[in-house]
Amino acid sequence: MALKKQRIAPQTGAAFQINAGERLRITDPDGAQVCDLIAFDRRDTRHALSSGRSIDYANNIYLSTGDTLYSNRSEPFFEIERDDVGRHDFLLTPCSPETFALLYDDAPADHPSCFMNLVENLAAYKIEPDQIPTTFNIFMTVGVGADGELSIERPRSKPGDCIELRAMTDLIVGLTSCSAEKSNDGSFGPIDFEVLRDA
Amino acid sequence: MALKKQRIAPQTGAAFQINAGERLRITDPDGAQVCDLIAFDRRDTRHALSSGRSIDYANNIYLSTGDTLYSNRSEPFFEIERDDVGRHDFLLTPCSPETFALLYDDAPADHPSCFMNLVENLAAYKIEPDQIPTTFNIFMTVGVGADGELSIERPRSKPGDCIELRAMTDLIVGLTSCSAEKSNDGSFGPIDFEVLRDA
Repeated sequence: MALKKQRIAPQTGAAFQINAGERLRITDPDGAQVCDLIAFDRRDTRHALSSGRSIDYANNIYLSTGDTLYSNRSEPFFEIERDDVGRHDFLLTPCSPETFALLYDDAPADHPSCFMNLVENLAAYKIEPDQIPTTFNIFMTVGVGADGELSIERPRSKPGDCIELRAMTDLIVGLTSCSAEKSNDGSFGPIDFEVLRDA
Repeated sequence: MALKKQRIAPQTGAAFQINAGERLRITDPDGAQVCDLIAFDRRDTRHALSSGRSIDYANNIYLSTGDTLYSNRSEPFFEIERDDVGRHDFLLTPCSPETFALLYDDAPADHPSCFMNLVENLAAYKIEPDQIPTTFNIFMTVGVGADGELSIERPRSKPGDCIELRAMTDLIVGLTSCSAEKSNDGSFGPIDFEVLRDA
């Protein structure tokens, strides 16, 4: 049963609540689009999703079906129950005005960014910009060379591919349709999401 | 000129202040020892070191001489001016009680940890446990396989090797001599550090 269904327009974001036990399905309707995800404990927003804890406990930088996304208090926030794509990034912070200033040539000062889209949408939950850490960057394909160099590649998601995350506690979630040309191969598609309760 | 010189005993930590322009030299006196580093802006401790920003802007997970360690506000916190070893980790959170419970067989519940050593030393600066994110894990050698799998290897630091970081703003710094058997090949040496002002 879908409790919520929403489309995130290109280069925008959304924030919403999900209860323990519900499923979050995130779909890439057109393919090759990235969706940055962040989450906070609804009872205490200092308790947040942690890249470093999740990667450490999985002993792998690429999380997929069966893996757990942990918080900064080492508590499970999500379990990945379905993953049509199998490749996501959990190393990089959401693109921000500074990202475009430092890494892009000729990006306008008002270039949309995942960071500002998260800031604006999470403000309703009194979450401050400094609280937004490294995001789980769904469908983002980042390779790591033997010398540690990163290569941002075209997302492997095909039209209609999705990932499903089971919420393990009551959460506030922020999501984006990524604004960065380099992460989505310049395609800027939307992102669809649903909050589902099992029958 | 050394303003401060201190030895961090095995499996303990320290916290101190450093001013913009001063240099922090961290030395591994016996070799193969890891030192977790975290830093906060002294004027506002919500402003903290960021793995995700630093890795993104360097386009590399292995930072060394010439690289900048950025904050969550994309401001430079440190520049690496000298690096005898050339290999450090910036992916993993400091070892914590939960790390030992989840990843180690038979670790006692009171096993020392970098996280608790940072928490205890940074409490003097009113920094809370939830504020401690992924640390810059000096001398820690973590490999990433093509499938994303992590391999924690023996640190490459030889006795007396050091790294020097130039502080770019006024900071509170937390450091440890890492408590985790897997990161230092079970050797548990001390870590020396100095705060230096150029003549």
